[in-house]
Amino acid sequence: MSDQSPADDRALVTDPERAVRTVLIVGAGLIGTSAGLALRDRGVSVYLQDANAAAGALAADLGAGSLEQPAEDPDLVVLAVPPQAIAPLLKRLQRQYLTSTFMDVGSVKVRPQVEAETSGADMSRFVGGHPMAGRERPGPAGARADLFVARPWVLTPGPATTAQSLDRALCVVELCGADLFLMSAERHDEAVALVSHVPQVVASLTAARLNGVDTELIALSGQGIRDVTRIAASDPALWTEILDANAGVVLAVLDALAVDLDRVRGALRRLDDKSTERPADTSATAVETRGELTAFLVAGNQGRARIPGKHGGARADYVSVPVVIPDQPGSLASLFVAAGEAGVNVEDVSIEHSPGQRVGLVELLVQPDAAASLAAALRESGWTVHFGLAG
Amino acid sequence: MSDQSPADDRALVTDPERAVRTVLIVGAGLIGTSAGLALRDRGVSVYLQDANAAAGALAADLGAGSLEQPAEDPDLVVLAVPPQAIAPLLKRLQRQYLTSTFMDVGSVKVRPQVEAETSGADMSRFVGGHPMAGRERPGPAGARADLFVARPWVLTPGPATTAQSLDRALCVVELCGADLFLMSAERHDEAVALVSHVPQVVASLTAARLNGVDTELIALSGQGIRDVTRIAASDPALWTEILDANAGVVLAVLDALAVDLDRVRGALRRLDDKSTERPADTSATAVETRGELTAFLVAGNQGRARIPGKHGGARADYVSVPVVIPDQPGSLASLFVAAGEAGVNVEDVSIEHSPGQRVGLVELLVQPDAAASLAAALRESGWTVHFGLAG
Repeated sequence: MSDQSPADDRALVTDPERAVRTVLIVGAGLIGTSAGLALRDRGVSVYLQDANAAAGALAADLGAGSLEQPAEDPDLVVLAVPPQAIAPLLKRLQRQYLTSTFMDVGSVKVRPQVEAETSGADMSRFVGGHPMAGRERPGPAGARADLFVARPWVLTPGPATTAQSLDRALCVVELCGADLFLMSAERHDEAVALVSHVPQVVASLTAARLNGVDTELIALSGQGIRDVTRIAASDPALWTEILDANAGVVLAVLDALAVDLDRVRGALRRLDDKSTERPADTSATAVETRGELTAFLVAGNQGRARIPGKHGGARADYVSVPVVIPDQPGSLASLFVAAGEAGVNVEDVSIEHSPGQRVGLVELLVQPDAAASLAAALRESGWTVHFGLAG
Repeated sequence: MSDQSPADDRALVTDPERAVRTVLIVGAGLIGTSAGLALRDRGVSVYLQDANAAAGALAADLGAGSLEQPAEDPDLVVLAVPPQAIAPLLKRLQRQYLTSTFMDVGSVKVRPQVEAETSGADMSRFVGGHPMAGRERPGPAGARADLFVARPWVLTPGPATTAQSLDRALCVVELCGADLFLMSAERHDEAVALVSHVPQVVASLTAARLNGVDTELIALSGQGIRDVTRIAASDPALWTEILDANAGVVLAVLDALAVDLDRVRGALRRLDDKSTERPADTSATAVETRGELTAFLVAGNQGRARIPGKHGGARADYVSVPVVIPDQPGSLASLFVAAGEAGVNVEDVSIEHSPGQRVGLVELLVQPDAAASLAAALRESGWTVHFGLAG
């Protein structure tokens, strides 16, 4: 099977609501409960199970499904459980539901698949899956029917997966409103090592440097370190499992990263040795060493530029229209009314909120061709607009 | 001089508008031009110089100051030039303006100070400074009078700095609306290595991993890698200079980071060796190795938790009220009107914009005690509010 774009893949599915009428979700955490809410919104009969009775009851009360046992084999069983629980659970439930398709939702795909094969599960009825959506609030309480809307959902069917099994899994992805990506389990694990697991490690590495230093030094923190370390706040137990399950692939990326890091450290060491010679060293060696640092930073520019915009689309090239507003109820409302009256769709907003200040700076992000007219219209209405002041 | 909080430091200044009446700004880049705009707003007479005539002319046209020569010694001269230009320029201008105080705005403080001393500059009339503000758009075209408002501005007076020199520098910081931090040049450089320079290096290291891999793998990028690598888009030439100027301090932090990285790689290597034994290894050694990973991730949690909220204040503990809105002009306006009518101050906003989708998810961040009433009021007005659905 070749890798295809979401639009192509979707064409495979003729009528999602006919292919999947009943779904059993095992595991009423954030993902399982959200999937239940989404599928019920689309008319699917959803059954829920959770080893933790309280979690199951909460999910059911939220409307994510019924706690009764399905009267017959569900079309699809979603295994929304930790990675190490997938293989034994799959084996057991496949004996109970002889015609159902099974899909997991774990963030690593090769190991659970190998474990399932080794345990003798029926791989023709199994499709690996990874909905790439999450929230800070875990558990059923954080669940939302729209959690998956326009987010990537990777499916990793194996060589034994039947067309019917794959079709049912595709239907669930479509019913949840997600963007489908089809790829092998190996390629999935390589991708998440690069875009998720290694970023997690470097965020933790960077944040850990702040332990044991004076609070005063950290007070100078700006947006840069906030962004770099945001995901360092993630759940250590969950991430230990993820790194363990994808250890080899993550290691390969970190090994390459360590080679680069050693080069940067070598360059800094040579420049530091030279820095006792004042004024700043202008020797050929120092110039060459600085060139190494520049090349390293340029490689970072290039890698960063490869990241697509939100939701896998092309990077949105919005233009910012900065507006200074009074920091009080109603200001934002009036501003957005004025923007709406100008007929401009605001694509994104950022607010510089300064506690204790009586003004705030709002940046309205709009399509490039709308910025000038928005700025003019807002000025017309008396707003302090900073767009285009540079002439 | 002891390190003090912004509020304490400000008490040192009695009347900023009397202490600094004339300022010469050398270097009409983003920082210099913004300082000119801010100081003129507060009634200061500002003179501008730039080796690049076009940049100077643009800054002057923007209203940042006059290109004429000051008739007498300015109270303060701001050296808004690259780090390596500071010492020679200071020496030259101190001979021209015999009574002026001089301040630089570079992002590294020890090396320029040592270079100035070595060059024989009058250090009693010099105050190191670092306004920690910036924008993606460099040069005078990106300048804003409010660039420094509520941002940290570090001053690093040396042992020879006179009280009058320090007082004048304090006035400029206050007139620009910045939050003052007083510390030694050494402590400043240690702080920025931790909170700025090392994050830059790790962002570039992480982004560089994306070069040469299939586009399809990068398509799975989520918010995590976007945040971790955002500053990898920074200017390589500028950052080469910064890393060079602070090489020794950055190196020390990266050395410690490399030790941690080696430990993580070692743990992953041991877990990967074991992973051929299916099912997942539960030996005492594997458990211990996973414990090492968990401890590493916990250290990241702890470091991250030490970072204060924006602008150095306590971390804002806002509550999110998620609302689904139609993705069309006017929707945001109506939403903010409804929020304003509820009498609630929206502290921050995040918009999940999904190209091609007909709905968007807006999260209104508000004070905790306002969330429930806002959600109720919005529901009353017919909005699809997801707050509190979990009961």
